[in-house]
Amino acid sequence: MQRTTIEKIYEDVEGFAGRPVTVAGWVRSVRDMKNFGFVTLNDGSCFKDLQAVMNRDAVENYDEVAGVGVGSSLVIEGVVEATPDRPQPFELKAERIVVEGPAAPDYPMQKKRATREFLRTQQHLRSRTNLFRAVFRVRSVAAFAIHQFFQERGFVYVTTPIITTSDAEGAGEMFRVTTLDVENPPRLEDGSVDWAQDFFGHAASLTVSGQLQAENFAMSFGDVYTFGPTFRAENSNTRRHAAEFWMVEPEMAFCDLDGDMDVAEAMLKVVIRQVMDRCPDEMEMFNKFVDKGLVERLEHVASSEFARVTYTEAIEILEKAQADGHAFEYPVSWGIDLQTEHERYLTEEHFKRPTFVTDYPAQIKAFYMRLNDDGRTVAACDCLVPGIGEIIGGSQREERLELLEERIEALGMDKEQYKYYLDLRRYGTCEHAGFGLGFERLVMYLTGIDNIRDVLPHPRTVGNAEF
Amino acid sequence: MQRTTIEKIYEDVEGFAGRPVTVAGWVRSVRDMKNFGFVTLNDGSCFKDLQAVMNRDAVENYDEVAGVGVGSSLVIEGVVEATPDRPQPFELKAERIVVEGPAAPDYPMQKKRATREFLRTQQHLRSRTNLFRAVFRVRSVAAFAIHQFFQERGFVYVTTPIITTSDAEGAGEMFRVTTLDVENPPRLEDGSVDWAQDFFGHAASLTVSGQLQAENFAMSFGDVYTFGPTFRAENSNTRRHAAEFWMVEPEMAFCDLDGDMDVAEAMLKVVIRQVMDRCPDEMEMFNKFVDKGLVERLEHVASSEFARVTYTEAIEILEKAQADGHAFEYPVSWGIDLQTEHERYLTEEHFKRPTFVTDYPAQIKAFYMRLNDDGRTVAACDCLVPGIGEIIGGSQREERLELLEERIEALGMDKEQYKYYLDLRRYGTCEHAGFGLGFERLVMYLTGIDNIRDVLPHPRTVGNAEF
Repeated sequence: MQRTTIEKIYEDVEGFAGRPVTVAGWVRSVRDMKNFGFVTLNDGSCFKDLQAVMNRDAVENYDEVAGVGVGSSLVIEGVVEATPDRPQPFELKAERIVVEGPAAPDYPMQKKRATREFLRTQQHLRSRTNLFRAVFRVRSVAAFAIHQFFQERGFVYVTTPIITTSDAEGAGEMFRVTTLDVENPPRLEDGSVDWAQDFFGHAASLTVSGQLQAENFAMSFGDVYTFGPTFRAENSNTRRHAAEFWMVEPEMAFCDLDGDMDVAEAMLKVVIRQVMDRCPDEMEMFNKFVDKGLVERLEHVASSEFARVTYTEAIEILEKAQADGHAFEYPVSWGIDLQTEHERYLTEEHFKRPTFVTDYPAQIKAFYMRLNDDGRTVAACDCLVPGIGEIIGGSQREERLELLEERIEALGMDKEQYKYYLDLRRYGTCEHAGFGLGFERLVMYLTGIDNIRDVLPHPRTVGNAEF
Repeated sequence: MQRTTIEKIYEDVEGFAGRPVTVAGWVRSVRDMKNFGFVTLNDGSCFKDLQAVMNRDAVENYDEVAGVGVGSSLVIEGVVEATPDRPQPFELKAERIVVEGPAAPDYPMQKKRATREFLRTQQHLRSRTNLFRAVFRVRSVAAFAIHQFFQERGFVYVTTPIITTSDAEGAGEMFRVTTLDVENPPRLEDGSVDWAQDFFGHAASLTVSGQLQAENFAMSFGDVYTFGPTFRAENSNTRRHAAEFWMVEPEMAFCDLDGDMDVAEAMLKVVIRQVMDRCPDEMEMFNKFVDKGLVERLEHVASSEFARVTYTEAIEILEKAQADGHAFEYPVSWGIDLQTEHERYLTEEHFKRPTFVTDYPAQIKAFYMRLNDDGRTVAACDCLVPGIGEIIGGSQREERLELLEERIEALGMDKEQYKYYLDLRRYGTCEHAGFGLGFERLVMYLTGIDNIRDVLPHPRTVGNAEF
């Protein structure tokens, strides 16, 4: 079967007009007007549906087709007819219709306006709805835009390991990975589990970040990026947290914090532009039904400079707001970790655009961040965006061996575990920087969808790993 | 610092000639001729090194630079000088050199011709060698070529879950993922572990394939693909097996086995072409030092049609070879699973090119493959390539509800677990097909590297999950 996708016809209605084509897809509606009828079909190639007209005279199995339910799959042969004076630019005049797979009458996607909560229980079918088809296309387009952005700039894509034997940055609770029989694990004489008998010869976990391994490769390729799944075993049931999510982590040699932010800002803008260009129908739908003002906001972001403010300045702004009567749940003072309410105030109310906050107090940031000359802050940057909060966290890395060793010791970390990381500082160390982008948060930002469960194909959260 | 990558200068020597630039990278060699010297620098932007010339008169810290060890990082400011009559097309006349990070004298990458076994113990540094820099660049280029291939053809990229609660196809041993305290897990009254208390509310594992979940999305988008990590907890210590590896799994609605093979063949050819075009220096190196004949073989593959032969015909070919005196360790007869020696005979000796073997006996293939009309074979296809063996395994999927249910029951599988998979056949089922490409096997094929540990940035194998 030489099938033509609906997208191709929309792209070149004039070229297809008068020509025979075969399309295949799933029924969205059938209207039977007795001697003729309309079938609305979607094949997933684009957001738009195709309308086929069938005449009882022309289509042998007219009654069969007129009786199929929503969700049935059809193969339609027909001729494209341009309809410049109708809302849709063409129709397909059906000549032959094969019902490939009827949908049983209990098809759960029939009812209009099913809640997103209900659709979460139908993960295998929900991408057949307009909303989720749009979300997952945007996700795909954004993912490719990210690859393209980095590849065009000469970055090397490095897949960092999922199974790890080190806790990257103490960044959070980790999942244990094992082949031991948990019912009855082998034990040492003292009764503790004998991890040496596990698959890898010691205890292993799922990674929380590929950054440290990516640095290995930045020290040979200069510019690298990762794009892969990462994990948090945190028992937090919020709209922004999932146990399994994808991260993009570029790492650049001979690059400082300013260079880091330049790359992050350019990347976000390119991804926004690509999604707007490649998914206009999807974006219009989000703008209409999910988040009015989305398109305008994204246009604004793509064309304006991001704000950049130090943590110390940010605290002053927040303190002033506090003094002026703005009520924060968590009181503001230098040294605190910024809470979501603070981040939102900065990006939504004060700057009204994406905002980099830089140079955080050392004690609230990770060990690998470069100590500033003031001795109390580090060259970190978080990118906050309206409606989401933190979407990117980055830093210049501590490239000075002695300072890094001091920090590791001061934090009571196991220096032996970081031998290889310290080696990078022993052999040809250099200024370098990188950041991590939470990919699902980006998709939420691009679509206006406010729950991470609705931008993951099959979300994994506390108590949930279905499908 | 506005640095110029070495790649950019090679791309436009004429344009850069006479112009000042700043380059930054790692020392590969320093030759001190007393009043002048040569520094060979690589910055990872391309395979080629840059040669800088420094005069004692011009470079203030000449002696410092002359004394740095291999692997040290330098920032060099200088002027590009075209050298059309020398082997390299240009030199950099250094004016200022900053030693960013000296390499300690025990730098393990100093010695030439270190064995690959030794380099495996230096995973954080090995990408600084020519060999591994070439391997990991080809890996990156191939990965992007795959994304590009599918995106340009309208496929939607779907990230399928890593943590799963179902054993996709009984495809192999799985890793357990848990947050229970393995030392002392919660137990039910009968003494067994209470998995209901685990993070997801039941026992979970690392995925062996994203196919079944990808099918969910093929039934809404038509054409989709996955590209992500998959896992096997098999205790097999071979050169072709790793516990963690990446797979590409396209899935296409309204597509049969022939269409499936067409896509697989086109994809392999596009990836080969892209890698040859974008990595000519790397490929030349592999061809010279790793696998003589590699480039010729790949050229041949990219420009010739793949062979297609049914399993039944393949068995006849092998039986004939056997009768003619070819000694196989595993005797050949209809019904056997093809062994590596058989696959290699077919692709290397008989067809001498990539070969699809199709229509295998049902009893040696997975439950979801479509039963052929003969009632004893299924619409499967394995793509075998010279030197590697199986690189792709695919099939048309069983889209007929009754037949799929029969198969699941006959194999004694838990039908309840496959409810959602069966739903796809209940609601608008259609002919569809897909395949899985082992990405590391592809990289081995593209580079001539014969050990999977050497194409994975940080390989995970039995007893090994370092870094």
